[in-house]
Amino acid sequence: MQRSLIPVLRIAYFGPAGTFTEAALESMERNGTINEPVTRISAPSPPAALDMVRNGVADQACVPIESSVEGPVIPTLDSLATHQRLQIVAEIELPITFTIAVRPGTPVEAIKTVAAYPVAAAQVAQWIAKNLPEAHIVAATSNAAAADDVCENEADAAVTTAIAADQRGLQRFADKVADVEGASTSFVLVQAPTAPPARTGSDRTSIVLGLPNKPGSLAAAMNEFALRGIDLTRIQSRPTRTGMGTYRFYIDCRGHIDDTAVGEALKALHRNGADVRYLGSWPTTVTDASSPPDDSAETAWLAALRQGEDHT
Amino acid sequence: MQRSLIPVLRIAYFGPAGTFTEAALESMERNGTINEPVTRISAPSPPAALDMVRNGVADQACVPIESSVEGPVIPTLDSLATHQRLQIVAEIELPITFTIAVRPGTPVEAIKTVAAYPVAAAQVAQWIAKNLPEAHIVAATSNAAAADDVCENEADAAVTTAIAADQRGLQRFADKVADVEGASTSFVLVQAPTAPPARTGSDRTSIVLGLPNKPGSLAAAMNEFALRGIDLTRIQSRPTRTGMGTYRFYIDCRGHIDDTAVGEALKALHRNGADVRYLGSWPTTVTDASSPPDDSAETAWLAALRQGEDHT
Repeated sequence: MQRSLIPVLRIAYFGPAGTFTEAALESMERNGTINEPVTRISAPSPPAALDMVRNGVADQACVPIESSVEGPVIPTLDSLATHQRLQIVAEIELPITFTIAVRPGTPVEAIKTVAAYPVAAAQVAQWIAKNLPEAHIVAATSNAAAADDVCENEADAAVTTAIAADQRGLQRFADKVADVEGASTSFVLVQAPTAPPARTGSDRTSIVLGLPNKPGSLAAAMNEFALRGIDLTRIQSRPTRTGMGTYRFYIDCRGHIDDTAVGEALKALHRNGADVRYLGSWPTTVTDASSPPDDSAETAWLAALRQGEDHT
Repeated sequence: MQRSLIPVLRIAYFGPAGTFTEAALESMERNGTINEPVTRISAPSPPAALDMVRNGVADQACVPIESSVEGPVIPTLDSLATHQRLQIVAEIELPITFTIAVRPGTPVEAIKTVAAYPVAAAQVAQWIAKNLPEAHIVAATSNAAAADDVCENEADAAVTTAIAADQRGLQRFADKVADVEGASTSFVLVQAPTAPPARTGSDRTSIVLGLPNKPGSLAAAMNEFALRGIDLTRIQSRPTRTGMGTYRFYIDCRGHIDDTAVGEALKALHRNGADVRYLGSWPTTVTDASSPPDDSAETAWLAALRQGEDHT
């Protein structure tokens, strides 16, 4: 008997099975961002998922990078800023809402205990008080572990994700549960350095900047973007802890490394002595993206002058 | 029988009793930052502690603002940036290490379960594996709740804080437990707007900047600091979610609002149409602080010229 070998993309994700990160990875498989067969590999933390790519255990990693509630995911950014360079090739933003899961057939009056990761418990406290006023919360070690606690009869219901409930054959008692509407988290797909996905005109570029520790060095770097009409979408200082008063900066801007303006800004930063780590350019679905100015007319004008044409 | 009424400062803190925030507040009482009798009021979150000051339930609030591991505490910064303005008057940085607490007399071989807040569990996993290899972790809803679980016989040991162990009469089985050395968190003391503590020459000033959403507005704002030789110590963009592509910026700089350079920079930002929310100036013990340039000689020179003296 012979089996055919299908090449499979190994993607590490911040696990365990059933986390929002796995839901993000599943969304990327479904929406065509990833269109190869995938083997998912659970990692205990975002840096551990990224290290699996560095060590060759995985081809890509899916990790959270920014939450609308908690802000930037510092362990992800710190890992991308240090160690072997990796590159972001795609991003997805997921609404963060919870699923209340029970063992199939559990009636509402039988729900006395609700397992929840403490961070999740805080985000559904009002819903629980209103809909399950008799129940009390027991702590779980993660959103996925809360579902395990229900499977193992250690709780009657879980505050978990839809994917974790489905994976374990639990019944979804309620979906899209969240006290405050509109919370979301962005997740990125990361791999070894590569030519970035083609420029779409609605792209984002991410870098880590190390700057000399003196007043004005950040302003000078910002000017390289401003002079070229490039909009920044994130800036975040981060102490490096390698020396007193030493910082690096996590910077995202609109545009693609193949945009003239972005390319020139990166060259200027490099020329001025900044330590520039390129983290990638990728298409963004965020619709507020104003692209860097299109300079094709100026490029044609300059080329004409250089060739001795009589342009005015 | 007559009792004398002692005025007591009511300070809200991110609780419950025994959190690192309460330990920070206790340190401020001990080191003389606060030198009045204090009543501590537990609040369920940093924004809730700040709201207690806004509502008059508390005179001051003690809340975490930045962790060396997790980065800026976004709920604290978001609350300071919005609603009624409050002002930071003091800051303290605490090393983050854990205490392993047991019921008095518990022998090591009797420790089968260890209650831990999941975030804390991740920070002591190696220590537990080495020193309590037989024990397994059970989730607790907070560092303080882990200690409660031991009091209530729901676990044999707790990963908790020294203050929580002492408050509950537990025995400290081990202190200063942390897999990675050097983790710390900064906490601030906040109150209604006030004249700031006097300039010490080693101060920090914090503002929230709202800027027009166009390329270059951030660079222009950065230039107001750079032109005056003022070092920034934090910059963090934050989507406001009130409109597409609208950001505010959390900015800390060296110096005091009474420093000429800092005062001039704030005036310039205000003149240029930025929305400037002043969050306070306070003494910092961070020793990498290079103060803004002392301009007393230039001030004397200018004053002399204005009075018609013959200066060169």
